[in-house]
Amino acid sequence: MRNAVDCGGEFGRIAWLRRLFSGVAAPGRVKLAIGDDAAIVEAKGGRWVWTIDACVQDVHFAWPWLTAYDLGWRSLQAAVSDSAAMGAKPVAALCSMALPAQTGAALWRGIARGQASAAEATRCPIIGGNLSGASEVSLHTTVLGYARKPLLRSGARPGDELWLIGSVGKAAAGLAVLERVPQAKRSNAMRACVRAWQRPNALVKQGVRLCSCAHAAIDVSDGVAGDARHLSDASAARVVLQASLLEQAAGKIVAEVARALEHSVLDLVLFGGEDYALLAAGPARHRPAFARCIGHVDRGRGLWLEHPDGKRVALGSGYDHFRYHRGGTL
Amino acid sequence: MRNAVDCGGEFGRIAWLRRLFSGVAAPGRVKLAIGDDAAIVEAKGGRWVWTIDACVQDVHFAWPWLTAYDLGWRSLQAAVSDSAAMGAKPVAALCSMALPAQTGAALWRGIARGQASAAEATRCPIIGGNLSGASEVSLHTTVLGYARKPLLRSGARPGDELWLIGSVGKAAAGLAVLERVPQAKRSNAMRACVRAWQRPNALVKQGVRLCSCAHAAIDVSDGVAGDARHLSDASAARVVLQASLLEQAAGKIVAEVARALEHSVLDLVLFGGEDYALLAAGPARHRPAFARCIGHVDRGRGLWLEHPDGKRVALGSGYDHFRYHRGGTL
Repeated sequence: MRNAVDCGGEFGRIAWLRRLFSGVAAPGRVKLAIGDDAAIVEAKGGRWVWTIDACVQDVHFAWPWLTAYDLGWRSLQAAVSDSAAMGAKPVAALCSMALPAQTGAALWRGIARGQASAAEATRCPIIGGNLSGASEVSLHTTVLGYARKPLLRSGARPGDELWLIGSVGKAAAGLAVLERVPQAKRSNAMRACVRAWQRPNALVKQGVRLCSCAHAAIDVSDGVAGDARHLSDASAARVVLQASLLEQAAGKIVAEVARALEHSVLDLVLFGGEDYALLAAGPARHRPAFARCIGHVDRGRGLWLEHPDGKRVALGSGYDHFRYHRGGTL
Repeated sequence: MRNAVDCGGEFGRIAWLRRLFSGVAAPGRVKLAIGDDAAIVEAKGGRWVWTIDACVQDVHFAWPWLTAYDLGWRSLQAAVSDSAAMGAKPVAALCSMALPAQTGAALWRGIARGQASAAEATRCPIIGGNLSGASEVSLHTTVLGYARKPLLRSGARPGDELWLIGSVGKAAAGLAVLERVPQAKRSNAMRACVRAWQRPNALVKQGVRLCSCAHAAIDVSDGVAGDARHLSDASAARVVLQASLLEQAAGKIVAEVARALEHSVLDLVLFGGEDYALLAAGPARHRPAFARCIGHVDRGRGLWLEHPDGKRVALGSGYDHFRYHRGGTL
């Protein structure tokens, strides 16, 4: 793992990545991919949705928690998820990969293979990027997506239901398992949660479908509380989460792992994040089959959690990732 | 510099950056900037030119060499330069900024101010990005540019002149001064070279103009030898550099500093890089006033340096930044 020479230096790496990434079919509008100063994408009617996301060693992940392949997969899925949350179909991605000089071929090729598989799975070819030295591994992935009419955070209206698409709590439970339970002692449920953290899937199809039925959407990268709060702030509306519906949404596997770890299911769902589920607001009559209702939008401001006895507690913005060494989208 | 609390954590930083960056006018086609999951850019006829570039602490720069403002400025100009080299006018940029948790407000605001000034100077608004923790400072800047017909590396033809636009050697001389000459002992020429390294300017207007007269172009980020080699490889043509024309192009200031440091002017020009000049190939009759001829394109392969006595020496690709802890574009 510490042999830098056998991967042929920068140009050798680039040639290798070029071959790997060109295996993913690019849509007709990608006119030029890896090999020049920049990638070229054709312009047509509609809107590009363009995002950048970071995955930094010892901030977003630590090596024992995932393989190089998992890291590559995760980093692309997380970036695509931001574009899916706006209802965009990904068109292409670029990745700026920073690696220590002594990084061996197995590691960086593993990362690139994970990226390429995720590119295939999301139909989002990696059409360029940058390689640079660094003291720690970091991946900065930018995705350009296309939507006829993107779905913003700011469109939620009083009377809307709040919808959850995909699973929540699993990734946070998985991370807790990675940190606290030795591999040999992990139950099947624990392994499923670890897998959810290691290999998230951006909900592209669902995001695109939401464009025609929802008023607003956001992806759940910071936990339901943080992202519902963003939705509430941007829409200048009150968002009320139903505690019982959230616990139901978390499901049996999360409940089992939470019990084993003496964690609260609600805490995992509200503050855990990294599932890359989607949160959307829309009228009840338009709720698609893949979405489940977890609350509603009201007149007023702020984020509230309603318990089965009808008691409501305010949820502050509270969760500031930067203080926890992580980060967020501008 | 070590007070992380006074800048209000992630959301405070983002709000501050949003205010700062929104001061730069966005063209009409930018439909949504900072504040949602991704930025939205309208699609029209033509081509987007899309690139990402990295600036990593202790790889691309060291703190005593530049201020936070310089770093912000440099990082945006370097990314815009890649797009200018394809004849594209920048439309917008996103930046993934990774900072140690203890980074003080003065530092990250200084970086952002430098970015905003460069955004103003290049008319390339920063419309989104990502903030994350890290153990070292790094900026990963992606630029989307627009060109009716982008200029590639691969278009050089036998019979073309090789053109240089902008200055070369100054930035490399400046870096050598930063490394070896204490501030109090620097001559005016040395200070000019240091400034060239600290505050490069992407040649956007010239790049756009080249579209109508050149067959191929590339920016000189790796030194004339490395980038002329890329042009030669991509165009499957021989590129011959004239040593005397290169020395003339370097100019008096570089010559003076090279003499003082006992450096070879040719080495600075050929292997120094980071001036963000442009290299282009085109027919002599179409050479614009801002370009100077430094060689020509021939049938054959490879990169050659011709000395005034007519002797030619082959220049190998030789300069692999990854081995020197730097990096390169995919």
